[in-house]
Amino acid sequence: MPNILTKTFLILAAIFSILHDVPAQEAVASELQTARRNLMPVPASVNWKNGRLPVTKSFNVSVAGVTDERLKAYIFRVMRRMEGRTLIEFSRDLESVPVNAKLFINTYNDGNAVPKLGDDESYNLEITANQAKLTAPTTVGAMRGLETLLQLLDGDKDGFYFPAVSIQDKPRFAWRGLMIDSARHFQPMEVLKRNLDAMAAVKLNVLHWHLSEDQGFRVETKQFPELYQMGSDGNFHTQTEIREIIKYAADRGIRVMPEFDMPGHATAWLVSHPEIGSGASGQTYKIERNPGIFDPTLDPTNEKTYKLLEVFFKEMSALFPDAYMHIGGDENEGKQWNANPKIQVFMREKGIKNNHELQTYFNKRLLVFLQKEGKTMMGWDEIFQPDLPKDVVIHSWRGQKALAEAAKQGFQGVLSNGYYIDLMFPAAQHYAVDPIAADTTLTPEEQKRILGGEATMWSEWVSPETIDSRIWTRTAAIAERLWSPREVNQVEDMYRRLAVIDGQLEELGLTHRKNQLVLLRRLANTQDISALQTLVSIIEPVKEYRRYQVRPQTMLSPLTGLIDAAQADAPNARVFNRAVDEMLAGTKTSENEAKIRSMLVEWRMTEADLQKIMGNSPALAEAKQLSIDFQNLNQIALDALDNLNKKQVQNADWRDAKLKILAEIAKPKAALEFAVVSGVEKLIVAASEQKKAVQ
Amino acid sequence: MPNILTKTFLILAAIFSILHDVPAQEAVASELQTARRNLMPVPASVNWKNGRLPVTKSFNVSVAGVTDERLKAYIFRVMRRMEGRTLIEFSRDLESVPVNAKLFINTYNDGNAVPKLGDDESYNLEITANQAKLTAPTTVGAMRGLETLLQLLDGDKDGFYFPAVSIQDKPRFAWRGLMIDSARHFQPMEVLKRNLDAMAAVKLNVLHWHLSEDQGFRVETKQFPELYQMGSDGNFHTQTEIREIIKYAADRGIRVMPEFDMPGHATAWLVSHPEIGSGASGQTYKIERNPGIFDPTLDPTNEKTYKLLEVFFKEMSALFPDAYMHIGGDENEGKQWNANPKIQVFMREKGIKNNHELQTYFNKRLLVFLQKEGKTMMGWDEIFQPDLPKDVVIHSWRGQKALAEAAKQGFQGVLSNGYYIDLMFPAAQHYAVDPIAADTTLTPEEQKRILGGEATMWSEWVSPETIDSRIWTRTAAIAERLWSPREVNQVEDMYRRLAVIDGQLEELGLTHRKNQLVLLRRLANTQDISALQTLVSIIEPVKEYRRYQVRPQTMLSPLTGLIDAAQADAPNARVFNRAVDEMLAGTKTSENEAKIRSMLVEWRMTEADLQKIMGNSPALAEAKQLSIDFQNLNQIALDALDNLNKKQVQNADWRDAKLKILAEIAKPKAALEFAVVSGVEKLIVAASEQKKAVQ
Repeated sequence: MPNILTKTFLILAAIFSILHDVPAQEAVASELQTARRNLMPVPASVNWKNGRLPVTKSFNVSVAGVTDERLKAYIFRVMRRMEGRTLIEFSRDLESVPVNAKLFINTYNDGNAVPKLGDDESYNLEITANQAKLTAPTTVGAMRGLETLLQLLDGDKDGFYFPAVSIQDKPRFAWRGLMIDSARHFQPMEVLKRNLDAMAAVKLNVLHWHLSEDQGFRVETKQFPELYQMGSDGNFHTQTEIREIIKYAADRGIRVMPEFDMPGHATAWLVSHPEIGSGASGQTYKIERNPGIFDPTLDPTNEKTYKLLEVFFKEMSALFPDAYMHIGGDENEGKQWNANPKIQVFMREKGIKNNHELQTYFNKRLLVFLQKEGKTMMGWDEIFQPDLPKDVVIHSWRGQKALAEAAKQGFQGVLSNGYYIDLMFPAAQHYAVDPIAADTTLTPEEQKRILGGEATMWSEWVSPETIDSRIWTRTAAIAERLWSPREVNQVEDMYRRLAVIDGQLEELGLTHRKNQLVLLRRLANTQDISALQTLVSIIEPVKEYRRYQVRPQTMLSPLTGLIDAAQADAPNARVFNRAVDEMLAGTKTSENEAKIRSMLVEWRMTEADLQKIMGNSPALAEAKQLSIDFQNLNQIALDALDNLNKKQVQNADWRDAKLKILAEIAKPKAALEFAVVSGVEKLIVAASEQKKAVQ
Repeated sequence: MPNILTKTFLILAAIFSILHDVPAQEAVASELQTARRNLMPVPASVNWKNGRLPVTKSFNVSVAGVTDERLKAYIFRVMRRMEGRTLIEFSRDLESVPVNAKLFINTYNDGNAVPKLGDDESYNLEITANQAKLTAPTTVGAMRGLETLLQLLDGDKDGFYFPAVSIQDKPRFAWRGLMIDSARHFQPMEVLKRNLDAMAAVKLNVLHWHLSEDQGFRVETKQFPELYQMGSDGNFHTQTEIREIIKYAADRGIRVMPEFDMPGHATAWLVSHPEIGSGASGQTYKIERNPGIFDPTLDPTNEKTYKLLEVFFKEMSALFPDAYMHIGGDENEGKQWNANPKIQVFMREKGIKNNHELQTYFNKRLLVFLQKEGKTMMGWDEIFQPDLPKDVVIHSWRGQKALAEAAKQGFQGVLSNGYYIDLMFPAAQHYAVDPIAADTTLTPEEQKRILGGEATMWSEWVSPETIDSRIWTRTAAIAERLWSPREVNQVEDMYRRLAVIDGQLEELGLTHRKNQLVLLRRLANTQDISALQTLVSIIEPVKEYRRYQVRPQTMLSPLTGLIDAAQADAPNARVFNRAVDEMLAGTKTSENEAKIRSMLVEWRMTEADLQKIMGNSPALAEAKQLSIDFQNLNQIALDALDNLNKKQVQNADWRDAKLKILAEIAKPKAALEFAVVSGVEKLIVAASEQKKAVQ
């Protein structure tokens, strides 16, 4: 109840001074929306039919063909999620007679108990008024179909139902991953588990687990316990836990591929094993606390290095059943190599011309160990070298071009450039990145070598409290890019469906939505955070690598600031900017003007509350200027809108004065920026050009 | 953004038709509030001083005396929580020179690594402008003091600080528990851990863990694996997990006492061991799915029963280090005993006159096993029998009188009657219950036998998703009752402080606040749930055992309904009812009238949205009438308020017509009821009496 009286006054004042004309909003469902409903990723083929299959207490399931325990457990969980949504308690017994079941699942074989690259994930789903029939060659295909089924669950005044539909579905790419960096910030079991659940919900099939870094070594090894004992601050996963994660993932049709990054990004190894580092003799190492690229590098000229790694990879190869082992290989700048006379002598003696060749020498030595254990090597772009065996997989942070180059030379590849979700770009930007561009020059055979892609959750600035909000829901858009046909690419419809998935992920325990409020309440030190919520709905963290530049922190710093509460794709900013674009383009002009105006009015109403919250909380002091900017921003936006409305063409001086204010507002504060600046800029420019005035 | 246009119109209309006079709200800090600030439980003695100890990057900690790992780890966690609130990264190294530290902790001995009843939990905390000095006889005392310190952390425009203060503190009762029933609904590790953190935050020191029931047997036993294999649906804790919980609790100064409820509430045992049941020979048992009291009972006349229990308690006594073993003993109605001829013969032969005596015979047999393992027996009221050894602890669900009776006969006791948090009563009601009434007739020596109390989280209707919201924050009020002096009993001040604790608990991962929104979003199947939030802020689940009566479910039913989202102590209802009481009593009349009116106006503004949400969601269909009631309720409340305001005295007919409408509204729907009914009733009656008109 606080502030309601103040608000009432503000509402009155704001409405009277500003409000002109408020038409009713229309909800126009496009054909596209009808065609796709809320499915994400969109299946390969969907044909909607007439009719609906009601979901009532008698809804039951029958399974024929191969019925392994994995599938039964999956069905059990799906039914519990349906119960959660419908409040209906369904029978926990499977129906033995298929025609008596409302959901009949038929699988031909149980596939691999531990999923493998290239597993058949296809399924057919036919829903009529009598039955939903899910057919799949493998257990995993049935799992994918069950997630589609859950997305089809709908309800209206007549109750819950599945719409009649015929779906034939299979993925476009076989490798659809999420990389979680558990090294820079350790992520506990529940974070991994709930994210595996979310991955399954959007049909991702690889957890790429980044387990060693300058900032931490996160795996129990029986052979070298000192690695995690001295390199993890006590934050590591036991082998029992790792097996638990692998099983949890396999139960959801998800592979788990570990990454041990080397020869660079290896400081944490050297804390306990300085003798295999490339530094001067006697150099000691400490766990790195800063983000960035660091000098400590494994010594590729030292046989001790290989002795350790051979034993290590043998142990890890047994622990992780996946056929692929990621060795990192990125960002080795070779400074220690250049500075080490012994290494220089070694290179001369072996005829190794440069550091890239030296790293290739290192990789080839590792390759022998991995091949002995039946593993295929994967690494970042830097490992690419034409004379490596052709089954090595190149993981590209450099981009499609590098990937295509590798494919042309016969290598398989996985794309992550464009899918760096840690950089806080909007979902639309990731969504537009295709592992194989439409205008590719690759031959069909070469195209087959592009296995897919991976969203990468680098964890410099995420804690267990915030990581979900960095991964989701944008990763669902990447999942769609990797599963659905290339032609599924309508951005607005993607965002519409993303909002639905956003809610569904919460039922899996994901905290992407709810923890924002926790952070805001802690920052404001009050329960009444509506003004702060309004602000956060239009600001975003700075993009790319600017966060550290403008607001440096270490791996030990608290991640509980306003920037940690703010998220990419600020929802109201997108609505605002779109309304501006449409209005200025002459689309639904008055409706969009009303929408813009009502948002600005609502923002004005929160200005006083916001300043009060900011003034009271020292934890928000760094962001105080944002509340002043907010006021100025609203002011100039309303001013521009009024001019547009009254068709008063302002001159260049007026425009430049406004743009100057806007330029100040646009500068990041507390590493946060207003995501509505571009929309407001357009309003100002339009009000001075008056080319496209409001009708 | 949805509905903002509609809302704007409604705001206009509502304000114009209704609004009269809106004075500014005043914030009057009472002396009491100043004296207690946000401390909860209130310490035994607090003396505020002038000055403040700033909390800046140089804030550091020094520890002298005994410095065990437990304390160091506690300090580490406290510092991380301070970092989370302040955004300041503190040094992780302890300062070696006490005078150079901002926080100096001095403990004299490390106490018991596994806490014991009666451990010294006292501490002194002296904060000056230079240093906070925490002195405690034991590690656990220091932990209690550290939680007080965290509650003192404050901030303003000059930054974060601790106020200067002198605190001498110790608990009133030695036994301050929370019982968690993991049997009816299994609770996973993270639920237990985060609740242990919350318990420590409010200085509770016993986790009473209810582990077997008709509905489930939740503990791994190596001796009788069939007990959990057949009696738990796979939902049980391994012994490794149990040890992990015991250690987690001990690290926070909390004892873990297990309960194995017998001879009744024992169906889950009999699924695998029907031979020790009291039913007819050959009877089989299934895990119970309903709530209630059931017939299956262990057979106290069968030596096989004792053979099993002797081995079982030996194993459990080794697993659980606590000195107390709770054997339940409640609600054995003896129906199987009455019906079993063999048992009747046994009773005649042994001269056992009735079922109570037979249960005492059973208890005495158990007692031998427990004593052999060095355990003290505890049980519910029913085990009370004058010739039991005097160290047996009586756990009272019957009430203070039963407890006092036992104390008079020399037994120790713990109170839970009045602390049944599953019954959805407001915090104030629990807060008013004192284990030793002020007018007690017990002698001081007898009073010492009242060890304390326990909040009981019976889990018929809680899932891992909702359990936190049933335990917290009301349990903090019970914790204060058990720790603080009896004289600390001001209800409004308790609620004020409870709201602060409410926020602080979120930093420990508690979901009591955030999961409500998750539930509401799932129910409404939309992100825009503000109207539903408004409704939920004034409705409460039905009290006591009415839920099952009006809305029966089983242990397998989904707990995702509106009733599961609603909480006891609906926050806005309390504000509303209090404003009515004050206004009618002539206290701050116009201010309170304005407050009431603005709430009603806000509620009216949400009526349309609410009906739309309710109409769209089949999961809310059961609660649809609430949205109509809501409209009628607002209407008659505003009508009454208007009459009061205009001093128009209405007659009895008018009054009775309104009260009749109100009576219909007051009836529970979907097991929910409006918590503002009493306030509205007072408005109606006052408008017809017009004894206390608005000025």
